[in-house]
Amino acid sequence: MTKVAVLGSGSWGTAFANVVADAGAARVTLWGRRAEVVDAINERHENPGYFPGITLNPGLRATTDVAQALAGAEFVVIAVPSQTLRANLTEWKRHVEPGAVVVSLMKGIELGTSRRMSEVAAEVLELPDDRVAVVSGPNLAREIAERQPATAVVACRDEDTAVRLQHICKSAYFRPYTTTDIVGVELGGAVKNVIALAVGVAVGMGFGDNAKASLITRGLAETVRLAVSLGADEHTLAGLAGMGDLVATCSSPLSRNRTFGERLGSGLTLAEVVAETRQTAEGVKSSESVLALARANDVDMPITEAVVEMMHENLPPAEALLRFMSRSAKPERYGV
Amino acid sequence: MTKVAVLGSGSWGTAFANVVADAGAARVTLWGRRAEVVDAINERHENPGYFPGITLNPGLRATTDVAQALAGAEFVVIAVPSQTLRANLTEWKRHVEPGAVVVSLMKGIELGTSRRMSEVAAEVLELPDDRVAVVSGPNLAREIAERQPATAVVACRDEDTAVRLQHICKSAYFRPYTTTDIVGVELGGAVKNVIALAVGVAVGMGFGDNAKASLITRGLAETVRLAVSLGADEHTLAGLAGMGDLVATCSSPLSRNRTFGERLGSGLTLAEVVAETRQTAEGVKSSESVLALARANDVDMPITEAVVEMMHENLPPAEALLRFMSRSAKPERYGV
Repeated sequence: MTKVAVLGSGSWGTAFANVVADAGAARVTLWGRRAEVVDAINERHENPGYFPGITLNPGLRATTDVAQALAGAEFVVIAVPSQTLRANLTEWKRHVEPGAVVVSLMKGIELGTSRRMSEVAAEVLELPDDRVAVVSGPNLAREIAERQPATAVVACRDEDTAVRLQHICKSAYFRPYTTTDIVGVELGGAVKNVIALAVGVAVGMGFGDNAKASLITRGLAETVRLAVSLGADEHTLAGLAGMGDLVATCSSPLSRNRTFGERLGSGLTLAEVVAETRQTAEGVKSSESVLALARANDVDMPITEAVVEMMHENLPPAEALLRFMSRSAKPERYGV
Repeated sequence: MTKVAVLGSGSWGTAFANVVADAGAARVTLWGRRAEVVDAINERHENPGYFPGITLNPGLRATTDVAQALAGAEFVVIAVPSQTLRANLTEWKRHVEPGAVVVSLMKGIELGTSRRMSEVAAEVLELPDDRVAVVSGPNLAREIAERQPATAVVACRDEDTAVRLQHICKSAYFRPYTTTDIVGVELGGAVKNVIALAVGVAVGMGFGDNAKASLITRGLAETVRLAVSLGADEHTLAGLAGMGDLVATCSSPLSRNRTFGERLGSGLTLAEVVAETRQTAEGVKSSESVLALARANDVDMPITEAVVEMMHENLPPAEALLRFMSRSAKPERYGV
């Protein structure tokens, strides 16, 4: 039976490991840093910090020993904070089996290098294209842990690898589609967090569903511009890993990025929001690397620009909004 | 000063007439059938049935006399129920000024003929392309009456006409973009109501944001397939009148289509939902004409098909869902 290692016992790592266990086509071991989480999963089939009361598949084993998790693993699924990936992989490299496929669940762009997560993994682990994959889509972790229906996209430049991965995570409630457009899938995920911040700000300012939907739509339009300039297929962004993920995140009050934006929009200063947020929202950091990518590729991303200014340069939300509404009247597709 | 007639004092007709009055570039007269609504607008600047407590622009005049509304009107904006358009226009035809531009605010497909609203208008009034336009987008009427920020698309095959129309409805809170793709704009609006029914059913069944976002995404994908087969530009559907409108409608608990679906999904029978719904949801009727269009053009629309079966053939929602989740695993873009 195929062996799968999932590295990272946060919400999405745990939920995805549980999907693989429920799918029943592979044995899965979840690595976590904290012994109490690992013990709770092994003994009570529960991750009490993230999903109290939800019974995980009893076949899901956990360990704090990364060498043990990686031993014999044909698929190495990684779900750690984006900006820690390079350091973690450097440490784990010697335990990764030759021939293993590395699967990123992460949504971010590395600060400084502007690399996508799969690029960081390929670089550190010296992997060829057919051994790097990504899973993304409208996948709020809590709902998936609750075994509510969801779809996703499994991306690998090598179609056979994508199909193998699809096979090990297709369950009764989790429906993965395949694609070879890994660039599009990762850009969709990374920029989504930035747009979700902007939507959160609008919600916090009291705006309704029209404004929210406008921001989501124009936000996806700028994501498409960037992704296509980097070689992605625009249809990927119209799919589950682009539009789907963006819509799910922006609809959910559970999203960290949306919530961070909401607080800012409701009148707190940036310093106040940061002070009361334990875990930094991924999009706050990513917004800078996304904008750097956009500038390097000469792509116009007005919403991302506003987010960077709001998150890092104290631009007041009301001013950002005014800027949008007072732009000159335009055809819908300009500068394409 | 340009004169604009808005025919139909329902929620969207009233809100749009108010946008034009607020924009200040035209005089606008709103026609309504009921004297008490017309009087309330003229005397108290309020449409109490739809927007109690909201003060409309005092410059907005209302009348029950369609000839008076249409006299001298360079733009005739129409917001009546889709299936009544042909009969209404036949009655109004002799009052429409030669040279007037007819603007549809309606989202539907005529039963029997499968015509778009602008096609019905052009046919009955014998209008050339540059005199038929459409306004659509993420435009929940109540929010626009509250003067919350929104964007929209103004579509006419003749770009100059689109720009003229943009000019008369661009206000501080309403931001219209122009396009010449009237087919894409109208298809986006009509199919949206059908997809919103499906999303409502999922919400009623208790599903979360992942499933909702998946349905919205796959729903837009089938909308694109249909629209493109009818000559639309797929980018229009990725824009405000496609994705934007769909996301706003599916997010809002105010949407009639979503609410209708929700009741069905929560376990009521079709007959029970119909019995307790005063006003039929537009998508219930449109689903049949949309499916007829799809079949005539050999386009696969599995969500629309399921909606038709649920709304007209008593397919239980749980069975419709099972059908989706048990389809064979696929690449994300198949049959394109």
